[in-house]
Amino acid sequence: MTTTATSHIPQTMLASVLTEVGKIDLEQVPVPALEPDQVLVKVEAVGVCGSDTHFYRTGHIGDLVVEGPIILGHESAGTIVEVGSAVERARIGARVSIEPQRPCRVCKHCKEGEYNLCVDMAFYGAYPVDGVFSEYAIIQDDFAYEVPDSMTFEEAALVEPVSVAVHACRRAGITAGDKVLIAGAGPIGVIMAQVAQAFGATEVVVSDPVARRREFVLGLGATAAVDPLSGGLNEYELHFDSFIDASGNAAAIVGGIVTLRRHGRIVLVGMGNDELTLPISVVQNRELELTGTYRYANTWPVAIDLVASGRVQVSPLVTGRLGLDKVEEGLLKVETDPTSMKTVITPSLTSDSGS
Amino acid sequence: MTTTATSHIPQTMLASVLTEVGKIDLEQVPVPALEPDQVLVKVEAVGVCGSDTHFYRTGHIGDLVVEGPIILGHESAGTIVEVGSAVERARIGARVSIEPQRPCRVCKHCKEGEYNLCVDMAFYGAYPVDGVFSEYAIIQDDFAYEVPDSMTFEEAALVEPVSVAVHACRRAGITAGDKVLIAGAGPIGVIMAQVAQAFGATEVVVSDPVARRREFVLGLGATAAVDPLSGGLNEYELHFDSFIDASGNAAAIVGGIVTLRRHGRIVLVGMGNDELTLPISVVQNRELELTGTYRYANTWPVAIDLVASGRVQVSPLVTGRLGLDKVEEGLLKVETDPTSMKTVITPSLTSDSGS
Amino acid sequence: MTTTATSHIPQTMLASVLTEVGKIDLEQVPVPALEPDQVLVKVEAVGVCGSDTHFYRTGHIGDLVVEGPIILGHESAGTIVEVGSAVERARIGARVSIEPQRPCRVCKHCKEGEYNLCVDMAFYGAYPVDGVFSEYAIIQDDFAYEVPDSMTFEEAALVEPVSVAVHACRRAGITAGDKVLIAGAGPIGVIMAQVAQAFGATEVVVSDPVARRREFVLGLGATAAVDPLSGGLNEYELHFDSFIDASGNAAAIVGGIVTLRRHGRIVLVGMGNDELTLPISVVQNRELELTGTYRYANTWPVAIDLVASGRVQVSPLVTGRLGLDKVEEGLLKVETDPTSMKTVITPSLTSDSGS
Amino acid sequence: MTTTATSHIPQTMLASVLTEVGKIDLEQVPVPALEPDQVLVKVEAVGVCGSDTHFYRTGHIGDLVVEGPIILGHESAGTIVEVGSAVERARIGARVSIEPQRPCRVCKHCKEGEYNLCVDMAFYGAYPVDGVFSEYAIIQDDFAYEVPDSMTFEEAALVEPVSVAVHACRRAGITAGDKVLIAGAGPIGVIMAQVAQAFGATEVVVSDPVARRREFVLGLGATAAVDPLSGGLNEYELHFDSFIDASGNAAAIVGGIVTLRRHGRIVLVGMGNDELTLPISVVQNRELELTGTYRYANTWPVAIDLVASGRVQVSPLVTGRLGLDKVEEGLLKVETDPTSMKTVITPSLTSDSGS
Repeated sequence: MTTTATSHIPQTMLASVLTEVGKIDLEQVPVPALEPDQVLVKVEAVGVCGSDTHFYRTGHIGDLVVEGPIILGHESAGTIVEVGSAVERARIGARVSIEPQRPCRVCKHCKEGEYNLCVDMAFYGAYPVDGVFSEYAIIQDDFAYEVPDSMTFEEAALVEPVSVAVHACRRAGITAGDKVLIAGAGPIGVIMAQVAQAFGATEVVVSDPVARRREFVLGLGATAAVDPLSGGLNEYELHFDSFIDASGNAAAIVGGIVTLRRHGRIVLVGMGNDELTLPISVVQNRELELTGTYRYANTWPVAIDLVASGRVQVSPLVTGRLGLDKVEEGLLKVETDPTSMKTVITPSLTSDSGS
Repeated sequence: MTTTATSHIPQTMLASVLTEVGKIDLEQVPVPALEPDQVLVKVEAVGVCGSDTHFYRTGHIGDLVVEGPIILGHESAGTIVEVGSAVERARIGARVSIEPQRPCRVCKHCKEGEYNLCVDMAFYGAYPVDGVFSEYAIIQDDFAYEVPDSMTFEEAALVEPVSVAVHACRRAGITAGDKVLIAGAGPIGVIMAQVAQAFGATEVVVSDPVARRREFVLGLGATAAVDPLSGGLNEYELHFDSFIDASGNAAAIVGGIVTLRRHGRIVLVGMGNDELTLPISVVQNRELELTGTYRYANTWPVAIDLVASGRVQVSPLVTGRLGLDKVEEGLLKVETDPTSMKTVITPSLTSDSGS
Repeated sequence: MTTTATSHIPQTMLASVLTEVGKIDLEQVPVPALEPDQVLVKVEAVGVCGSDTHFYRTGHIGDLVVEGPIILGHESAGTIVEVGSAVERARIGARVSIEPQRPCRVCKHCKEGEYNLCVDMAFYGAYPVDGVFSEYAIIQDDFAYEVPDSMTFEEAALVEPVSVAVHACRRAGITAGDKVLIAGAGPIGVIMAQVAQAFGATEVVVSDPVARRREFVLGLGATAAVDPLSGGLNEYELHFDSFIDASGNAAAIVGGIVTLRRHGRIVLVGMGNDELTLPISVVQNRELELTGTYRYANTWPVAIDLVASGRVQVSPLVTGRLGLDKVEEGLLKVETDPTSMKTVITPSLTSDSGS
Repeated sequence: MTTTATSHIPQTMLASVLTEVGKIDLEQVPVPALEPDQVLVKVEAVGVCGSDTHFYRTGHIGDLVVEGPIILGHESAGTIVEVGSAVERARIGARVSIEPQRPCRVCKHCKEGEYNLCVDMAFYGAYPVDGVFSEYAIIQDDFAYEVPDSMTFEEAALVEPVSVAVHACRRAGITAGDKVLIAGAGPIGVIMAQVAQAFGATEVVVSDPVARRREFVLGLGATAAVDPLSGGLNEYELHFDSFIDASGNAAAIVGGIVTLRRHGRIVLVGMGNDELTLPISVVQNRELELTGTYRYANTWPVAIDLVASGRVQVSPLVTGRLGLDKVEEGLLKVETDPTSMKTVITPSLTSDSGS
């Protein structure tokens, strides 16, 4: 940690605000006030996530509904520039990756260590809790994790999707020698493949109908990449120890289940279905275990470690960098540019950031 | 164990043979020959299971298909009257409960202790492996478990459905203080309720639309019994730690899932569906874990212990006893007599058993 | 919960203060001030624990050292009479059992659900944190657990040693059908035997060299009680699934280890040894697992449930009730009266409580 | 698998027989007869293990005592040249790594998947079961694991010590991001360091007082290597998630325990102590878990996978190759040559092998 003199903290900051469904405005808003256990982070990089785009397009994800203006964005990193009254001032200057959630810490789930299931969670970018498409952000001190100097802010921001994968691999119980199937070679699938290897998997097959994505993941985590639409999974009957769905596609889920060995595990990460028709006799006869993931808990230190040690590479996923004035463009990249993988919002690139 | 002089073993025995779908004949068949590691058991009691009736009616259960004459029955107990060449002769005379399966012992699953998932299993009553609706039966020595003198043969036979419940409660991870929902108050549901309590559950709610069944289970394992069709589960939102389905009914399964707390577990014991449409967003958001059970492994010693210690009572479930000549009547009881719970085939009651 | 009008809260209260090693004075001290997330409890019952006596006698337990005046006592229950600013006022009037610890909630261990291992714990009665041998006590709201009306305050206070046992049985992994050995038939041993049964153990053998204690535990949790000094454990070679030491006696620990089956578990609850010479080749050859317990975490709801359901009885352990003016007598009971099991300090019995 | 014509099987073979303590004779002995479920393997490589040397020197290890002539050796690989009557003939020609044990398959431990704890085990090289310092060896078919063509026989033989490490890392529960301390940089320590990384450990510190060994392991699995005798572990207080002892040295074990974080795990692999004096208050206060390992179960497929994928390198450990006529020299290498790490007995190098 390099300690620097406290920066001068302005009263207001630029923020990209979702003012209504399908509309983002760059606004000057007040820099949020610090509670005693919080730190103020000058934001340096924020990854754009598919869930941001979904909120932008539809105004909701499942039960979560946007009911007023909100700042999206939750994959972020930056530098601590001010601290609350209960936080050590030595933290100022620390380069941190932000875990974008604030659990209640008193409910049964928090006290049992599964705080992602907290009954009173405040998650960044989930209305009415502001996210980090802005110049500054606040987070409680213990959810701002210092990263090594060797790690870029961009990498530190992408510790968030790595955390998604760490949580999934834990729930899948992946260990040395495992054979793992991953459906979907989008950003989460590509990171998942690498994290599965970091958990010890020696065979990681990724299925995706898009050839370009298969090619990409083959060089980055997968030991094989197959096209599920042309029978690529046919040879894997009763083969895999775990199947992690990162596609949200119902056909992919059903197609993956039948490739599992007895006592295999299914982890559904990708969202998109309220209901799903499953081959339940296969689940029963093979005693498969099926579960889903909801965000993450206690993943940041390990995720930072995996990125810092080079076991998981996130930089190759970055296909674009945009300023805060172009968040809308960033949110739409996934629709407009089929080669886009991960766009990073970089406040310093904002054209009028000096204004 | 009381050792007695070896009985005279006849060449043939009476057996109730499923000769074609929907037809059972009482026949004289050869007493099966012993392999070196097997014992010959004089059968004293055999419970009739719903799966026997299903085979009788349809000729199959899932992938298991009856392709020729077969003896059904797999919930059994009796006395060892002869032993194979590799078995200690002191075993003769032992009163035993039979675990009705013969795993290969060499496949990955057998060697990892989950032999119920053996890739080359011989299960009693599953074609072409004969079951025990007969005067004698063979089983490998280590699958014939001696029972205390205080235990009746009927109880020893019903250790089998207790094993089904032990396996399910293990997979549900039930422990002290748990709140458990069980759907279905048939024989398995009633035994499951008691076994759940034996695993430490302090609240066991059983749902069943039939009033008489609710009343029965209330006195035998359940701390509450509710009618799911009249809103009986409405008050249990986010309440249970585990939900075990012993009904096989799709609506009951869906209705049970939504009563689970975050990180709750669903265990599907009841069969009957090839596919099932599940509220998958509930599974994901609450990180529920869903699995099924396929028979059992390593359950007999515990199941015997639970019955012997009085923690699980199976005798109250017995609603009828019939000889080998009335197996067909026994198989149909569940259809013809709504008050029937468990019929036990008792070879000594066979009218022409002396012939 | 019965809500009553707020009691008038006095400025000072009676408290039994350990002013120096071996000396307890009854003093008027200020009623502690409430932090926003705390509640003020009018104390109705406090169990005397062996660790209180140890602190009183020696001024320390392991690394914990008494460095100034302190109020001991940590097994307590009472009624909420006032609440901090962040707590719902409807909590006033609640009859509660107190979990006597305040973890930091932000360290790795707290966030992973093992807050008993918190690196910055404040535990009641461990210097400089005051305990509850006093008329009033404060505790954070979520550590004051409401108990059913049917539960007495005495039972509610003794939920604490039940929690010790719940934590130990969890770490021992006790489940249905287990055979458990417990060394020591003092208060913890007697409660442990009952809790082991509540976790499903069907055989619970307790060893203690004192005949009266063996007799007592035989009627309260043990299925057998043996004298280890006269060979009582000889017949149990390779027998038990788990061994829980509640004696702190080195010979008892070594004697217990050799009775374990392969893959058995040893849980050391009783304290008293800095070092211990173990038969390590037995641990290795049988792949035993040895661990200890340090207080408890996430046990109160289950412990209350076990007492409320009658599965664990604590009232029979109470051998005496004394006022706050007789705490010193209570602390010495264990030394002066060999029949003493558990003394409960009852503030309402204090002779000058009305002063 | 390359199938070749059945080799001509001779009646006798060369074998290095331990005829008395401290004496090995090269003898012509009968090629062992095949049971129906066994295969005959032409031995190509056998690693020399410290336990072989210990048997040779003292005639016993713990309870295992050599009471007559025996062939030592249990780290082996070769080619199947004949099969028992119940084995598919297509297995002839397969290049296999041998798991050198024959569990009973019927005891509780075998059926529960922990067959290394079998109550009736026949282990190769443990009297009276012959090992594989010979031209041919028998093993049951399912314990002869085919290896890829890319794997040398030497690597296939050293799958055995990799299995020791896989079993230890499983019992230590090593997963992604773990920090692991290993005591001892002998062959097991060096392999353990690599296997710990394959399980996901990102920090692997190895302690050994010998500089040359520290240097060797630094290039092969360790992220740091320290000298425990000069304070090398001082900086690691409360640091490691797991500590695996591969030294058998009492001081190293005690020194390792205090470096563990709360809830850390200790796995004792190295043997050599009947008793051990442990800092038990540290075990209790930190709720550490201590266990040992006894051989291995269900490790071969994973161990082969780790070697085949290059995650674990065993070839760099081989410091010498000797014929069957020089087994005694091989057994003594560890005493005579401080640079020796692993000697491999290679039957084809036997000077009079053609006799």
